[in-house]
Amino acid sequence: MSAKLKDEPLYKALASELKNGILTGRLKNGERLPSKRAMSSEKQLSLITVQNAYELLCAEGYLKSEERRGYFVSYSGKLMSDDIPPVKLPDTSKPRYDFKSSSTAAEGFPFYTWTRIMRETLSEKDTRLLAAIDPKGVYELRREISKRLAITRGIYCSPEQIIIGAGSEYLVGLVYQLLGRHSYAFENPGFTKAAKIYQRLGASLDFIATDSEGIRTDLISANKSLEVVHVTPSHSFPLGTVMSPQRRFELLEWVSDAPERRIVEDDFDSEFRYDGHSYPSLYSLDKSDSVIYMNTFTRTLAPSMRIGYMVLPPKLLAKFEQSFMFYSSTVPALEQYVLARFIADGSFERHINRMRKIYRSRRDTLIDALNAEFGGKIDILGKEAGVHLLIRLHGDLNESDIIDRAKNAGILLSGISEFTPEGSGDIIFSNALVINFAGISDSDIKAAVKLLANII
Amino acid sequence: MSAKLKDEPLYKALASELKNGILTGRLKNGERLPSKRAMSSEKQLSLITVQNAYELLCAEGYLKSEERRGYFVSYSGKLMSDDIPPVKLPDTSKPRYDFKSSSTAAEGFPFYTWTRIMRETLSEKDTRLLAAIDPKGVYELRREISKRLAITRGIYCSPEQIIIGAGSEYLVGLVYQLLGRHSYAFENPGFTKAAKIYQRLGASLDFIATDSEGIRTDLISANKSLEVVHVTPSHSFPLGTVMSPQRRFELLEWVSDAPERRIVEDDFDSEFRYDGHSYPSLYSLDKSDSVIYMNTFTRTLAPSMRIGYMVLPPKLLAKFEQSFMFYSSTVPALEQYVLARFIADGSFERHINRMRKIYRSRRDTLIDALNAEFGGKIDILGKEAGVHLLIRLHGDLNESDIIDRAKNAGILLSGISEFTPEGSGDIIFSNALVINFAGISDSDIKAAVKLLANII
Repeated sequence: MSAKLKDEPLYKALASELKNGILTGRLKNGERLPSKRAMSSEKQLSLITVQNAYELLCAEGYLKSEERRGYFVSYSGKLMSDDIPPVKLPDTSKPRYDFKSSSTAAEGFPFYTWTRIMRETLSEKDTRLLAAIDPKGVYELRREISKRLAITRGIYCSPEQIIIGAGSEYLVGLVYQLLGRHSYAFENPGFTKAAKIYQRLGASLDFIATDSEGIRTDLISANKSLEVVHVTPSHSFPLGTVMSPQRRFELLEWVSDAPERRIVEDDFDSEFRYDGHSYPSLYSLDKSDSVIYMNTFTRTLAPSMRIGYMVLPPKLLAKFEQSFMFYSSTVPALEQYVLARFIADGSFERHINRMRKIYRSRRDTLIDALNAEFGGKIDILGKEAGVHLLIRLHGDLNESDIIDRAKNAGILLSGISEFTPEGSGDIIFSNALVINFAGISDSDIKAAVKLLANII
Repeated sequence: MSAKLKDEPLYKALASELKNGILTGRLKNGERLPSKRAMSSEKQLSLITVQNAYELLCAEGYLKSEERRGYFVSYSGKLMSDDIPPVKLPDTSKPRYDFKSSSTAAEGFPFYTWTRIMRETLSEKDTRLLAAIDPKGVYELRREISKRLAITRGIYCSPEQIIIGAGSEYLVGLVYQLLGRHSYAFENPGFTKAAKIYQRLGASLDFIATDSEGIRTDLISANKSLEVVHVTPSHSFPLGTVMSPQRRFELLEWVSDAPERRIVEDDFDSEFRYDGHSYPSLYSLDKSDSVIYMNTFTRTLAPSMRIGYMVLPPKLLAKFEQSFMFYSSTVPALEQYVLARFIADGSFERHINRMRKIYRSRRDTLIDALNAEFGGKIDILGKEAGVHLLIRLHGDLNESDIIDRAKNAGILLSGISEFTPEGSGDIIFSNALVINFAGISDSDIKAAVKLLANII
């Protein structure tokens, strides 16, 4: 019986078997058990073994013994049922074309390389794989990240400044605790999930209109109470705008104007750039030590691989090391060591380049198909980078209307309104669709856009 | 050059090479670049390629061109250094005998089985390994946990009630957000790390004295403001007491007395029981739907494997499904699928039994050695279960004094005072050592205790 622990004495095995019977409801509350003698002969166990089992269960409150009447079940707690629901089959109501969920091109994932490196790492049976991890994360990984950041983002930081975490959602929570600030500015429209996390933790958010140059720095300066600005300068979500150099400098001026101000630079979408310029990161330009840089491997590897990181400026690092080192790292050691090697041996860069090709082709297919089907009735925005773009709808085309009809036809789309908080200030425009094309093949993209055109 | 992206046009490659030079400080701010002609011949690139590279860098603000004078570096941002500190060698200041850090017996970890299952899982190249995970965690794992809980802890719950998270620390944060309560009761002495997390998130904690029967329910009832009680009934840390049936019922009475009250049952240490009784879990006894059950695989597998879970009572499940499903699962899909198989095929139970033997033997060795060396001068408490025990010191033996001397001799120990918050109510006793023996071999245990006796 699976509940029997191999190294248990017999009386314990019998006790847990009976307990199991009681908990499954096979032995009802108040029910009389077989006499010790009867049980011992039935189970081929010594009388004393049965005696011990019964007494253990009495002590644990599952049985009670009554003078000259015997032992009775005395358990009225929750019962466990025998039938546990079967594993759900893959959701069949899944839409044919999902342009909503953030996914990646699974076929692009380097399974072979990843598995090989994982095997190598495991085969070392290195006890470091089992020991507790540095609260900041595995050093080798932080080192590889710091090297890469210097080259790709002009961010010079030591591995000591890097904190690994289970996705940027977790890191956002950590940032909130670290900054201990309460008045946040957030892009509008913006990545509402991060906003939700700040709010749930107690922050008050001010949603700042974002236009074709990025977040409106004039509106930030206008609100004196703001302490922290959370922005996505490389490729904002959902607008897909790249923050202009002008705005970058204005934002950095704002942060340097008062010592308590901070910027959280969420660079989640900086790896996939197809055309246009990539400007230096805010972190690399900041001289006031007030920018936290944040990025994730969720986009570049897979959503199921929960690895993100942030770079703390020296000023904040000290505070982190004082008060936050008691937190355990939230990412398994194995993943961290494997990713470190994956970056070190160049596999990551090769992967990024392969993915960029895949995504660029998907983007081009999407744009061509959209132009062919919807011609002058739409504008396509934010297509220079990332794995989503924005379709601004003209005249008779209506956002919620299209989303509903598409859904019925098996096409899942998001509207810009989803990312525009209720009652938030005027935004640059509404009536637009957000298209995440990462997870959809070229042929499916063509088919979906055609289908979309037909139903409208 | 590693910054070169293989699929970049030449001018971009040159631009990023120059950018790299600027960021590393090899090209100083204000420095004049070679003329386009000079550069094109030096690099064997067409004039137009160099022209494009220079113009890109001007647009990005790294260069500025001056009429008839040429191109100059105009970057004064942070510089990246070439020498990034080397990977730290395994800390050599590591104590010879560490009875403080929570670790596991690494030699007991089933590397072979784990690797095999991981290989099998990976070899399927199942796209489920890459797709976003159910916010509650992988269903197969939740299902295996629910089956096991029914048998081992008398907890009957559906997989829907189980939330997987990156360790119990993460789950504690989630619980705090879910309950939205602010007045917590916490064991004193207790597992101060969890207490810190509640406090950092904004909870006010009341540290309740814990005695040989568990947390003092009379003190809980006395404080009418308390809303949530966080307890470790199976084997409290650090006292190692098992909460008595009496206290369990009193605690459940307390929670059922008012609708807003909740209990968090942290069962982190329930798997390793050597003697004495195991009582039904609070969750299994509760009829008021007010107990959250929490456990982790950190103790049973490895600290580096960040997998914990909690069971929400139906009442709270509804709230979670309404407001918390936007959080991504914090544990990589691969780990979750592997662990699910590891449990399903019986490997986990075999592993637990093997570890129980190892830990029992370590515990016995430790107790024998302690009795031999310190005879009547100490009491040993909380030895019935878990991987730590408590040494209460008599008369002339002083906690901090022993800890200091031991440290100098290479033995790392904790004192009970570490787990007793400042200014907290009277506790059952002080002057005691907390010994975590999980990670130390029998022979090292003997040697360490002998050494300890000599230096005192």
